[in-house]
Amino acid sequence: MEQNAMMVKTILDGWTGTLKRADTLINELTDEQLMKEVSPGRNRGIYLAGHLVAVHDAMLPLLGLGEAHYPMLAEPFIKTPDNKGSYPYTIENIRNYWKEVNQDLNSKMAALTPNEWLEKHTAVSAEDFAKEPNRNRLNVLMSRTLHLSNHYGQMLFLKGTDE
Amino acid sequence: MEQNAMMVKTILDGWTGTLKRADTLINELTDEQLMKEVSPGRNRGIYLAGHLVAVHDAMLPLLGLGEAHYPMLAEPFIKTPDNKGSYPYTIENIRNYWKEVNQDLNSKMAALTPNEWLEKHTAVSAEDFAKEPNRNRLNVLMSRTLHLSNHYGQMLFLKGTDE
Repeated sequence: MEQNAMMVKTILDGWTGTLKRADTLINELTDEQLMKEVSPGRNRGIYLAGHLVAVHDAMLPLLGLGEAHYPMLAEPFIKTPDNKGSYPYTIENIRNYWKEVNQDLNSKMAALTPNEWLEKHTAVSAEDFAKEPNRNRLNVLMSRTLHLSNHYGQMLFLKGTDE
Repeated sequence: MEQNAMMVKTILDGWTGTLKRADTLINELTDEQLMKEVSPGRNRGIYLAGHLVAVHDAMLPLLGLGEAHYPMLAEPFIKTPDNKGSYPYTIENIRNYWKEVNQDLNSKMAALTPNEWLEKHTAVSAEDFAKEPNRNRLNVLMSRTLHLSNHYGQMLFLKGTDE
């Protein structure tokens, strides 16, 4: 395998592996568990699940891979803290959005070549990118993978295990 | 910047940024806070801090960068769950180990060239590495960065913030 391709794969495998663990966890958790705070006074599972869907959905336009499916999730799940009340979305909605958004994102990301991963993301201008070529798609993937791992570790507290 | 160097930097920046946030958090937390469970019934701060030191320390031999400083930490902080009692190490010990180990690791990692990052880590045989060249140092760095992000998200619960 060519070196560039191998390095992209290293990060992409990190994303895929972490997402798979998060997906397994969310599927295992009951609706009741997802309505609980991950720790006293902290975000509820439904908020973190909605937050991850909204952040992953926003990766589509940021990576230049299409429109977000559910841009209306940004307001309640990114811009606003957990309201601790009810959302206009059921847990079943969130579960479906989670599945749909991640599937679409993964299939589109799988089609990118190593060179395309090194192209600029859409939130940086061509001028700035010329000066800072590390502001590329791969950087977005790296930061979103760390973000996912961070919240996955917190959501684990909803079930009976630490690791 | 050459492409390989840029890709290494993407992962290394993820490590450095996450480690810096974890370092700031650990420095801000009082000894009393570190003795608390991050969430009811879960690991205490001191265990997670000791766990991260032990895992980062073990990266030195795994990356072929030298001996671990405190291999005796593996037993209580990796192989064994939090004993919820006292350790033969004070929080001050752990704080000092954390600082020393991460500094040494960071300075040695900073000296690696992109090609050296693509060399095999020490837990894979030359034969297996020939078949699976992605089992390299960079892969170790990626997985340990995700590990750090996961536990950092949990340790955040020791202070009054979610993010």
